[in-house]
Amino acid sequence: MNFTIRAATKVDCKDISRMIMELALFEKMTDQVKISSEELERDGFCPNPLFECLVAEVPKENKSKEAVSLHVPLGFTTVGYGLYFYTYSTWKGRSMYLEDLYVMPEFRGFGIGKGLLSTVAKCKALFVQVAKEKHCARLQLSVLDWNAPSRDFYATRGAQDLTVKEGWHLIRFDGQSLDDLGNDAQKK
Amino acid sequence: MNFTIRAATKVDCKDISRMIMELALFEKMTDQVKISSEELERDGFCPNPLFECLVAEVPKENKSKEAVSLHVPLGFTTVGYGLYFYTYSTWKGRSMYLEDLYVMPEFRGFGIGKGLLSTVAKCKALFVQVAKEKHCARLQLSVLDWNAPSRDFYATRGAQDLTVKEGWHLIRFDGQSLDDLGNDAQKK
Repeated sequence: MNFTIRAATKVDCKDISRMIMELALFEKMTDQVKISSEELERDGFCPNPLFECLVAEVPKENKSKEAVSLHVPLGFTTVGYGLYFYTYSTWKGRSMYLEDLYVMPEFRGFGIGKGLLSTVAKCKALFVQVAKEKHCARLQLSVLDWNAPSRDFYATRGAQDLTVKEGWHLIRFDGQSLDDLGNDAQKK
Repeated sequence: MNFTIRAATKVDCKDISRMIMELALFEKMTDQVKISSEELERDGFCPNPLFECLVAEVPKENKSKEAVSLHVPLGFTTVGYGLYFYTYSTWKGRSMYLEDLYVMPEFRGFGIGKGLLSTVAKCKALFVQVAKEKHCARLQLSVLDWNAPSRDFYATRGAQDLTVKEGWHLIRFDGQSLDDLGNDAQKK
């Protein structure tokens, strides 16, 4: 199947928002999603965007069929996205973090997933265009341990699982624990 | 002991660079460090910086003693740093990632670590000043599984260990595997 991968624009935010929810459904955590398509527009398409995004498109004749189990209506031509931002390693410098990589189930197995990821990696080349010697030394992401297809997908492409290999754990403060930290700071 | 926490400036990069190496020594991975203080200056102190950094200072009369095991000469007054940047959650929006939090061993136990972290959390308030309604919903970081003091430090302050709780693994492409992804993309 033909598909195109291109940089997302503001008008893609409704599709991205829909697919964020589809991905959360797969991860069984839809109650966690608080982001609207308007917020995506505001945060990603401003002078200093907080993220960048690629979308995968198929021709109209290949638009999505209904997939009841995911509550996805039929008729979408934007069938995948990769949302990423730039991070910093105090060992290696400028790096990239792939927050989400998603392709609608009926379009998997056509190389879109691999194409999306490889296009994200192309941003190394973009860095060189934007500012010489500012290479992106790493591309990082997180994956759930029960998501064997994704873990295999990355492993077969040479990625390292740093949680297994070096023992890194991801830690989060949010809600009350983040407020408490802020209050601690103000007391000083 | 008195200490001050303040935003780092360009002239702090030599100290930050030294402490990055001290932290890598503790993590037993000094061979991984490729960042110079000049690169820190370039990447962190430009119009669109890739990171922000806080440093902890003690008065001259409390400057560091020699700590031979860490190859650290005596006489430093900048004794800790917290280096962070902004990330994006497709569920919660603008977030913050604490790449490093380090306090020189002889200055631990005086609340500097806690002060540094809490000051980082204060950036929630800075967001509100910079742009209303742009709250930082999360503060995330990674910790090694054998680093029990740090894991306890975060746990007692209400942080969640997402690797234990939800099964998230950190995945990395770099070096050859990142080049290979880029080459794959160019073939399409």
